[in-house]
Amino acid sequence: MTTEPSTVPARLGEIRDDLADLYRDLHAHPELSYAERRTAAEVARRAGAAGYEVATGVGRTGVVAVLRNGEGPTVLLRADMDALPVEEKTGLPYASTATGTAADGTETPVMHACGHDMHTVCLLGALDVLAAAADSWSGTVLAVFQPAEELATGAAAMVDDGLFERFGTPDVTLGQHVAPLPAGWVGCHAGPAFAATDSLRVRMFGRGGHGSRPETTVDPVVMAASTVMRLQTVVSREVAAGDAAVVTVGSLRAGTKENIIPDEAELQINVRSFDTRVRERVLEAITRIVKAEAAASGAEREPEITPFNAFPLLYNDEAAMARTEAALRAELGDAAVVDPGPVSGSEDFGRFGTAATAPTCYWLFGGADPEAFRTAFEAGTLDRDVPSNHSPYFAPVVEPTLSTGVRALTAAALAWLGPKDR
Amino acid sequence: MTTEPSTVPARLGEIRDDLADLYRDLHAHPELSYAERRTAAEVARRAGAAGYEVATGVGRTGVVAVLRNGEGPTVLLRADMDALPVEEKTGLPYASTATGTAADGTETPVMHACGHDMHTVCLLGALDVLAAAADSWSGTVLAVFQPAEELATGAAAMVDDGLFERFGTPDVTLGQHVAPLPAGWVGCHAGPAFAATDSLRVRMFGRGGHGSRPETTVDPVVMAASTVMRLQTVVSREVAAGDAAVVTVGSLRAGTKENIIPDEAELQINVRSFDTRVRERVLEAITRIVKAEAAASGAEREPEITPFNAFPLLYNDEAAMARTEAALRAELGDAAVVDPGPVSGSEDFGRFGTAATAPTCYWLFGGADPEAFRTAFEAGTLDRDVPSNHSPYFAPVVEPTLSTGVRALTAAALAWLGPKDR
Amino acid sequence: MTTEPSTVPARLGEIRDDLADLYRDLHAHPELSYAERRTAAEVARRAGAAGYEVATGVGRTGVVAVLRNGEGPTVLLRADMDALPVEEKTGLPYASTATGTAADGTETPVMHACGHDMHTVCLLGALDVLAAAADSWSGTVLAVFQPAEELATGAAAMVDDGLFERFGTPDVTLGQHVAPLPAGWVGCHAGPAFAATDSLRVRMFGRGGHGSRPETTVDPVVMAASTVMRLQTVVSREVAAGDAAVVTVGSLRAGTKENIIPDEAELQINVRSFDTRVRERVLEAITRIVKAEAAASGAEREPEITPFNAFPLLYNDEAAMARTEAALRAELGDAAVVDPGPVSGSEDFGRFGTAATAPTCYWLFGGADPEAFRTAFEAGTLDRDVPSNHSPYFAPVVEPTLSTGVRALTAAALAWLGPKDR
Amino acid sequence: MTTEPSTVPARLGEIRDDLADLYRDLHAHPELSYAERRTAAEVARRAGAAGYEVATGVGRTGVVAVLRNGEGPTVLLRADMDALPVEEKTGLPYASTATGTAADGTETPVMHACGHDMHTVCLLGALDVLAAAADSWSGTVLAVFQPAEELATGAAAMVDDGLFERFGTPDVTLGQHVAPLPAGWVGCHAGPAFAATDSLRVRMFGRGGHGSRPETTVDPVVMAASTVMRLQTVVSREVAAGDAAVVTVGSLRAGTKENIIPDEAELQINVRSFDTRVRERVLEAITRIVKAEAAASGAEREPEITPFNAFPLLYNDEAAMARTEAALRAELGDAAVVDPGPVSGSEDFGRFGTAATAPTCYWLFGGADPEAFRTAFEAGTLDRDVPSNHSPYFAPVVEPTLSTGVRALTAAALAWLGPKDR
Repeated sequence: MTTEPSTVPARLGEIRDDLADLYRDLHAHPELSYAERRTAAEVARRAGAAGYEVATGVGRTGVVAVLRNGEGPTVLLRADMDALPVEEKTGLPYASTATGTAADGTETPVMHACGHDMHTVCLLGALDVLAAAADSWSGTVLAVFQPAEELATGAAAMVDDGLFERFGTPDVTLGQHVAPLPAGWVGCHAGPAFAATDSLRVRMFGRGGHGSRPETTVDPVVMAASTVMRLQTVVSREVAAGDAAVVTVGSLRAGTKENIIPDEAELQINVRSFDTRVRERVLEAITRIVKAEAAASGAEREPEITPFNAFPLLYNDEAAMARTEAALRAELGDAAVVDPGPVSGSEDFGRFGTAATAPTCYWLFGGADPEAFRTAFEAGTLDRDVPSNHSPYFAPVVEPTLSTGVRALTAAALAWLGPKDR
Repeated sequence: MTTEPSTVPARLGEIRDDLADLYRDLHAHPELSYAERRTAAEVARRAGAAGYEVATGVGRTGVVAVLRNGEGPTVLLRADMDALPVEEKTGLPYASTATGTAADGTETPVMHACGHDMHTVCLLGALDVLAAAADSWSGTVLAVFQPAEELATGAAAMVDDGLFERFGTPDVTLGQHVAPLPAGWVGCHAGPAFAATDSLRVRMFGRGGHGSRPETTVDPVVMAASTVMRLQTVVSREVAAGDAAVVTVGSLRAGTKENIIPDEAELQINVRSFDTRVRERVLEAITRIVKAEAAASGAEREPEITPFNAFPLLYNDEAAMARTEAALRAELGDAAVVDPGPVSGSEDFGRFGTAATAPTCYWLFGGADPEAFRTAFEAGTLDRDVPSNHSPYFAPVVEPTLSTGVRALTAAALAWLGPKDR
Repeated sequence: MTTEPSTVPARLGEIRDDLADLYRDLHAHPELSYAERRTAAEVARRAGAAGYEVATGVGRTGVVAVLRNGEGPTVLLRADMDALPVEEKTGLPYASTATGTAADGTETPVMHACGHDMHTVCLLGALDVLAAAADSWSGTVLAVFQPAEELATGAAAMVDDGLFERFGTPDVTLGQHVAPLPAGWVGCHAGPAFAATDSLRVRMFGRGGHGSRPETTVDPVVMAASTVMRLQTVVSREVAAGDAAVVTVGSLRAGTKENIIPDEAELQINVRSFDTRVRERVLEAITRIVKAEAAASGAEREPEITPFNAFPLLYNDEAAMARTEAALRAELGDAAVVDPGPVSGSEDFGRFGTAATAPTCYWLFGGADPEAFRTAFEAGTLDRDVPSNHSPYFAPVVEPTLSTGVRALTAAALAWLGPKDR
Repeated sequence: MTTEPSTVPARLGEIRDDLADLYRDLHAHPELSYAERRTAAEVARRAGAAGYEVATGVGRTGVVAVLRNGEGPTVLLRADMDALPVEEKTGLPYASTATGTAADGTETPVMHACGHDMHTVCLLGALDVLAAAADSWSGTVLAVFQPAEELATGAAAMVDDGLFERFGTPDVTLGQHVAPLPAGWVGCHAGPAFAATDSLRVRMFGRGGHGSRPETTVDPVVMAASTVMRLQTVVSREVAAGDAAVVTVGSLRAGTKENIIPDEAELQINVRSFDTRVRERVLEAITRIVKAEAAASGAEREPEITPFNAFPLLYNDEAAMARTEAALRAELGDAAVVDPGPVSGSEDFGRFGTAATAPTCYWLFGGADPEAFRTAFEAGTLDRDVPSNHSPYFAPVVEPTLSTGVRALTAAALAWLGPKDR
């Protein structure tokens, strides 16, 4: 088994423009979690055209594409397809103007603010390259186009829908995520690579009334605001300098009108951690603070804290990652491979490997304009000038992002597939 | 000119059940500001049937009903018709399940949480009684059913639409508001009676990003929360104990998803004051705090503070109020008339008197169940147990609220209309 | 009984310079509560020299001076003598550089920042004038130089030490306080005139440790800071616009070193109110908030809330105040008498009248430079430019403050003393 | 050159009881920074008795003890001697009841809450053992007993006082710190081992006045409290999960009396960081927040931010640490040596190596009762049950803490000193 790097760029050169067109099309037509119907249809059409057996509707809106190419290992390659309820502000010609129906039934702008469109296109590209090079390897490619990664449930939905029973159990699981690194780079980190995430929906109950008579009410706006301020102390006071955690209140909504004190406020809280003890302390502190802030306001009803969207820690198997990283280095050159350390983002990709009892290998690939990245790095303004995932300004440059993603995925797959029997 | 109290109850007895049915119907079908079409149609139909000349569409959705009954003063009687974006929680058989389109285009539950349905019905009742007793008085009744009081613009819209040019200028303006007093009571206060209101929409700008990487963002949720806490100091530290002001953040909205730090937050702020110097200091303090909190967060863009919905101070003319109060005492008995002092609620009713250069007389009438009120008063739990206006639990008892409102309005009108020439 | 205004200025003219010297001397030598020994000695010396019977050590450091001048009413005249732990910043030639021993045993700067030095001198002046005019009135002057008004205990200490049993029970109690009004003015308000005060010492318990390891501690600095912010909501959200209350955290002390997280924090809280229901709600809210904030921090020990320095509401008897105010108008002219309304400051003077079952009459007299006052008033900068009591810049102009105080006290006394039998 | 572990315990056995007595004596008599006179005298006496040349008053109150024992390397061994303004709460028989004069001139309780008494005794013990074993090694022992480590200036004071010019320049610098690890353990970490520290004194200026009239003031208590809450966001929002920083407000002091709003508040802030970019961002954020909070309050005077007590990052030279750690493992056994990672505490020890251009080796040694440590570890209550440095409950068990400290220091020294010429 050897990687044959020369084959990737050749075939890639033929399909690159088409893939770029597809990328811009998907970017302009983002779909929310479990609503990836247009995307799934396009994926199914193209994978089928490339010679893969295709199944749709796996885990609601997921797509599976399989190429059985003789004896050998089964390699799971995964892309996620869903977009986010973000209003795009990139100003790109192919910027999204789409909307979708949010969980609460309201219509909301939608944007591929996390780059899953790029993941989908790169995997389609890799499938094409692998199919074109089918005489150079042996085994089975199990391509998984997952829905609803943003809800942390899409991977589990596909597993629960019989993914492995129906399509075979992989020997390794491979995936990648576009990130604010220079396009052309990949980032590999063995061990704990992506944070565990816990999401909490908190309803705090006051007692509404007229805005001119606060003394007749229990003001949930003040209650929620004080809670947000207090929650800042969880990381600042209860997590050691050497430990890592993030507590973000991503959404705070209370009231509709300036002169009506509402009955309640809703907070959506997101927690990242890399260690079980830290995670438990943080979650306990949040609960303690939410309850105490309600008590400080004299709330007559206990707040409700409802967990949702929990991502497990993504742990890259050390040995498998070493093998995969070697292939990436061979394909892209040593200079293109960095160790980003553990990142505070989260992924449900690990569920595939856990369910299959197969090692997990997941890496980053850069999407930032290399010149802009360098300038910002030297100025110390990376955080400001290079938009990160989920920003309304997040916009990978099409190239060399796309080519790097296709090459990385293909090379990694070939590192695990068997050699062709001769 | 004398009031003839005996005539009101007699006619009222005949129409009371029908009015109560109408009240429950209007309550079940609330309409937002400037969307009072169903209400206006019913008002126009009934006022026309009672013999009044009727004009609709005055100030967009307002209705004017005029009865010219010989020489004598013109008396403006006013009711407001609009409801609020509140989800009713009274559990009444006639509770609202209606929705309406909010200013931002979203669909929202609607409720008559401020009692304008009761105002409308009471004025229709008074018009009926006055028409039935037309041989006992002389002059002109100018009934004004106003839209959009909650936006502070309905009165001005009617005045600007030529109300007085088209229908005559009044010699006095009379109006009333249902309040959490015992049903059967009225409240009269000469001088500054309802607060000046200033409403501000504040947009605070951060920089969004992924919830796991707050260091790449300027978090507008924290910015807004800290602002809310700081705004509490305006009243607690910058308004003297002997002065009165209210600063309420009625709405705070930021973000849509737990793991996306949004780009901005919006606060809707409501300010009440009774004195120009206090008002100015409070508004200056709010501006100062909002700007400084943005600076504390390192915001790159100045916050936007946009005033809207400004209500002037409602000042009851001392002499005119004395005359009106005397009539209410004669009609309802001295025990039913109290002085509630200045109230922190606001009203745009004063715009009619100001535009007409006619005195303003505006009073409260009770809507609370008298027994429940007494029990709560004795227990010191009025604020908790007697829902105030704008609460989702606000629900005047139909009687004696309705009868008292009709009698008060009729008696007040007769106190200003001329005697019949004989 | 008539006031004889002509006699006051005449005698006053003779002693004014001496009184001014005494004022500057007392101002330069302030003494803390119950440490008024130098002041008391000077008071005793001068009152004795003026012909009064003098007793010292009444209520620890208080002085009583009595002039029995025939049949007639007994009129209590009161001045308070103690100063405050404030570092004077007036820059006056006679500014204090004194220090004293605070309650916690530490040495602290001391200043007559509340004007009790002026009260003392004015009462000494009035005693002199009354003694000089003894042939024009009949009755008993009971002059009380009280210690420890700032602790709210000095009046009670003198009463408890047998003041009335030993020196006679008054028929009326008269007193005055210098205030940031123009010098030359007096302010009279019948009814609730000075707020009730409640003072609370709050100890909040965390768990100390090294500043670099907050996760091993419960940080009482954050706990106390959050409590201060939450306490702002008591007045802003729980007191109606029409009610009045003040909640001040006058002192917050925690820690001694930047890199040691301390074990506890201490807050000193001051509450003003004018109504029992408001007072109770405010005190309950403070207790609720302090406990909840400790809980939010995960404190292992309940906070301690210890009341101290409670002042009752000072209520000026309506009839007695009318009589006294008439005398002040006769002495000073109608233009010099204003109604300041209820003030949020507090006084323990009311304890004398309550204990004696005699009416209370207490008024303000101005100490601000009239020109500076006018300029600031017109610029709307009174709060900024006219230092109020307890400010390190508080500095009454010696004249006409002193003369007005002597004249007011003398005229008020003569309004209650009997006429001379002839 | 070889370590000869057997020699240490033998001699140590003879002096251990005496050292323990000395430890308890020093613990009972702590002295603040630059006031270590009693301690220095005892150190000088004992070092002289052990045969060392002794100089006192080096860097104000520091002591230097030198043993020149033939050719060979010069090894600097360092202990710090100063205690902290903490009130001891250990309840030990030898607990401190001492007081000292704080920087602001007030008398304050003093405690060896950081274990410098143990450092001093261990170094004295090591000097004794080294002197007793002088025939087994060759070179120069340069023992440095440093004042004022807690002020971050003691090391620099000794260097500036000509330490190396007068007593020779070392080839390596060795030191150790007692820590909440099990007694018997040592902790070695190469690279960035102790955080950089920046301490800031922040004065925030309001405008004082009477507690009942906050509207005439700018309340510095609220200003400071809001600042403390906002400062929590520096770590929670502006430091990445993968970076480390601590921002502690160790002291907040404002006001002296409940009813006087003071003129200003003072915060003492302590910052820990391990990376220059993070450090700069944190310091900028603190400055930004302090200024903005003053602006939010309407302060008329800019806050003053004064740096003091800056500790550099302590960086353990990798090669030198490897050599030292090997000696500790040989002396104490592999099981007793752990890697604690970088710690957030700070040390000025690095200044010696920097000034001498010699490598720095600094390690931790445990002081916690091993059984109590194990119990707390298993219960997950280490933070609660094992007091850390600077806690009023910090109390190393005398043994095996003392013996381990002597053995570690001796073994490390011998690892660098030359073998005896024979």
